[in-house]
Amino acid sequence: MSKEKLKVMMLGGLNEIGKNIAVIEYGKDIIVIDCGLAFPDEDMLGIDLVIPDITYLEKNADRVRAILLTHGHEDHIGALPYILQKINPPVYGTRLTLGILESKLQEHKLDRVKLVTVEAGTTVRAGCFHCEFIHVNHSIADSCAIAVRTPVGTVLHTGDFKLDVSPIDGGMMDLTRLGEYGREGVLLLMCESTNVDRSGYTPSERMVARSLEHIFLKNTDKRVVIATFSSNVHRVQQIINASIKFGRKVAITGRSMVNIVSAAVELGYMKVPDGVIIDLSEINKYPYDMITIITTGSQGEPMSALYRMAFADHSQISLTSNDIVVLSSHAIPGNELLVGRIINELYKRGINVYHDDHEVHVSGHACQEELKLMHNLIKPKYFMPIHGEYRHLMQHKELAEFMGMDPQDIFVMGIGEVLELDKKSCQRAGTVPSGRVLIDGYGVGDVGNIVLRDRRHLAQDGLIVVVATIDIDEKVIVSGPDIISRGFVYVREAEELMDEVRSISNEVLTKALDNGITEWTQMKNGVKDSLTKFLFQKTKRKPMILPVIMNI
Amino acid sequence: MSKEKLKVMMLGGLNEIGKNIAVIEYGKDIIVIDCGLAFPDEDMLGIDLVIPDITYLEKNADRVRAILLTHGHEDHIGALPYILQKINPPVYGTRLTLGILESKLQEHKLDRVKLVTVEAGTTVRAGCFHCEFIHVNHSIADSCAIAVRTPVGTVLHTGDFKLDVSPIDGGMMDLTRLGEYGREGVLLLMCESTNVDRSGYTPSERMVARSLEHIFLKNTDKRVVIATFSSNVHRVQQIINASIKFGRKVAITGRSMVNIVSAAVELGYMKVPDGVIIDLSEINKYPYDMITIITTGSQGEPMSALYRMAFADHSQISLTSNDIVVLSSHAIPGNELLVGRIINELYKRGINVYHDDHEVHVSGHACQEELKLMHNLIKPKYFMPIHGEYRHLMQHKELAEFMGMDPQDIFVMGIGEVLELDKKSCQRAGTVPSGRVLIDGYGVGDVGNIVLRDRRHLAQDGLIVVVATIDIDEKVIVSGPDIISRGFVYVREAEELMDEVRSISNEVLTKALDNGITEWTQMKNGVKDSLTKFLFQKTKRKPMILPVIMNI
Repeated sequence: MSKEKLKVMMLGGLNEIGKNIAVIEYGKDIIVIDCGLAFPDEDMLGIDLVIPDITYLEKNADRVRAILLTHGHEDHIGALPYILQKINPPVYGTRLTLGILESKLQEHKLDRVKLVTVEAGTTVRAGCFHCEFIHVNHSIADSCAIAVRTPVGTVLHTGDFKLDVSPIDGGMMDLTRLGEYGREGVLLLMCESTNVDRSGYTPSERMVARSLEHIFLKNTDKRVVIATFSSNVHRVQQIINASIKFGRKVAITGRSMVNIVSAAVELGYMKVPDGVIIDLSEINKYPYDMITIITTGSQGEPMSALYRMAFADHSQISLTSNDIVVLSSHAIPGNELLVGRIINELYKRGINVYHDDHEVHVSGHACQEELKLMHNLIKPKYFMPIHGEYRHLMQHKELAEFMGMDPQDIFVMGIGEVLELDKKSCQRAGTVPSGRVLIDGYGVGDVGNIVLRDRRHLAQDGLIVVVATIDIDEKVIVSGPDIISRGFVYVREAEELMDEVRSISNEVLTKALDNGITEWTQMKNGVKDSLTKFLFQKTKRKPMILPVIMNI
Repeated sequence: MSKEKLKVMMLGGLNEIGKNIAVIEYGKDIIVIDCGLAFPDEDMLGIDLVIPDITYLEKNADRVRAILLTHGHEDHIGALPYILQKINPPVYGTRLTLGILESKLQEHKLDRVKLVTVEAGTTVRAGCFHCEFIHVNHSIADSCAIAVRTPVGTVLHTGDFKLDVSPIDGGMMDLTRLGEYGREGVLLLMCESTNVDRSGYTPSERMVARSLEHIFLKNTDKRVVIATFSSNVHRVQQIINASIKFGRKVAITGRSMVNIVSAAVELGYMKVPDGVIIDLSEINKYPYDMITIITTGSQGEPMSALYRMAFADHSQISLTSNDIVVLSSHAIPGNELLVGRIINELYKRGINVYHDDHEVHVSGHACQEELKLMHNLIKPKYFMPIHGEYRHLMQHKELAEFMGMDPQDIFVMGIGEVLELDKKSCQRAGTVPSGRVLIDGYGVGDVGNIVLRDRRHLAQDGLIVVVATIDIDEKVIVSGPDIISRGFVYVREAEELMDEVRSISNEVLTKALDNGITEWTQMKNGVKDSLTKFLFQKTKRKPMILPVIMNI
């Protein structure tokens, strides 16, 4: 038993591969921290979601003692509905986290999952591990770091965090408890890296209140529409507070916003006096200056409530110059164009927009000084930066070196790479199966690289189908060739071109038959090659060419 | 003649619609300033370029007296090769601008265009207009504003500009001449708006030198690879200067970089001592610390030289931890993910990357204080903000109001909207045809909304082709139905599903034939509807379904 090593690995967490799933293993016991999903890159055409490959956990399903959740964001809990179909250990999390998870599980009709609610301060025993949930600040309430006592030493996983010295609710992050772990000695720190490229400290959530009140004050004659992340209940609370202060009623739109607000009120995470929230259908009973509308769509998502408002396509809200729109959010990389499109559209229609430059948003992640604070409190023996793109992990390594760590004690790990530790040493020890699993509709993992490559080809230059029916015995074409094109050029404008395509196909097939070629593949390739060459010459495009030859 | 009005309009310039083409018209005379192209949005699948619709100019081709170019960037000259196929007035520009244009025209085999080289200070007479080119600073050499004296007053078009008090070459922008126009009286200012949301002044290009030298100094043992825009010859000059200072040879890679550097040296815009530039094939003859490589790809463009280096796919350069990479550029909105992907890949391979936070790039556009300076010098009677997204134009309007203009004298114009002026008044006066024209391969405008919609559909969920040959007289299926799918699911993993698709198709067709239905459309729609319903139920996807039914 004394030769047993502790194994730590991430099965997701770099941007490309699912998100944030950490595995800690000792002897017969495995625990998992978080289980997130990612949204597809622009070249993953048609893909809805990306989750991590959990082959390793499936193979060791009987050894997984617990899944522990740091907080309720998609990139930390979103893959659970898929993964809990394969493994089924108890899931531990704080009240809000499990509240959000529960509604997801219901949507997926997963009703046999064992959910265990904990609070910051609770220690969960899972196999040989003792796991304490420790309160941190973040852009969603009820967030925790998790300290895992293992037989060879303590692993501290920060989850996502920031230091908020004047939080809206729930108190400042528990520096004391973290410091106690640090004093006692931490073997491995796993610390998030999202904002490692930003200097200074992240401002307090409370700063947003001041900016909001300033905006309300300047727009006492307007209706105020505010978009934010639905999961940021403290932000929503602040918007409601400011509205109350200025005598406004609050209406809510967007499915996830409606769901989360009602859940948060029910669970006691938001305090809203009676009569403040009104139904969306009632907004027109009030003058503009008495209404605030809180909405989803702060990332520019097409079909979100804000998008529909901007493009005059919302069934209950029509915006005019009597409205202002506040984007209480920051565009996630990749969404800048979508957000920009909404802002332009709103301006075009005479609606003033408040966003980035009006301090109506603060980040939920630790900047450089806060990360240094964490390193200083924990003073770990070994360090593994987590959460972020590869460049962030490398910058976090530099930061840890700046804090005095030996570069040899810092491990920037790839997805699936195993770190092996005992009390006195730490090294890389091979890899386990890992990677991304694409989800498209109901299909989990059935869209692979070939399908994506075909979609990209189709998206690029469209498609030409050549169909002919042949009597292989008589060696004649009995019907066709017919040409069908989609996504290539609009056919009515290119009839001549299509006539040429038809006659080339006819020629190739006739010649093949005359030459006694009866191999399907050979005929098809002949058509494909001739047409590809011809069309590239004529149009500089390479549509997908699909010859279909049938025999009667 | 005294009732004649001056007409001013933009036929492109908002982000979505081509780029930067201004039209000024009086009586029988029309002049055009700039003629740019835009790159496609992510939802314009397969599209290479976007140019403005110039129907209006085509209709009035015999009245177009001149095309005047402010500078040689793509978004100001890129549409000319397409537009000069339709109208053919003389084109005026400075030496570098026309040098860049000329090679584009050669590529398109346009050899009958009349190009007239001017210098800052030159006045061109075009119909009733007198057009003076005025030197400004920008991220490409030889940039100009253009002052157009018209029968009713002067129109000042700034082009793209910034104020550089310590430029690399060519002198500070000609504030004196601009001020003289202002003192004389300017009827209409058309001023660019790109950086209107940034406070302060844009730093001098010379600042980059300091940052570069700092990087060279910290990496005396490494090879330095620097990516930047090929058209920024001053930037390239600075990189070469710094290399010389540190005793390095310079190699150049990337087609446009090679082209522009040789053109700039030839035209005298760059000064490079003999023996400094070496051929790419020679780099391995020198130690790492004696080489700088200048490359394209600073926007993360797939297939660019930098991209190929990052993904270990460049035939002559392989990067190791003995290299550092400097991105002397800033990601254009929409390219953030592409640039991030390269940075991550480089870090992953142990290569240090210097970018945004190392002051290795400065913008070429005026920030707020410089825009205010322009407004203050010109003090126009009327103002039309140009160049930028709608939100920028609106912010520029605010800035002009801050400078004391009456909101009624400021005109934020849509594309194709006509502004009509005389000496004492200015108002909107209808629209002319305008919009975007999509270019795909050789095709100009043959990809319309239907084709794009099909590409999006194909990209989303792929395609299923159902083919059957029928004997319509005998009312039997003689061959098929065969099923071919692309981009839907990988067929080997979904054989059962495809079997079901086949049998449903068979059933629908057989039933139709039994019921005496012989209408092609009706049969096809039957297949399409049944399969769409079935597949959505099974997979939650909606592939494009293409039934092909042939008769023998």
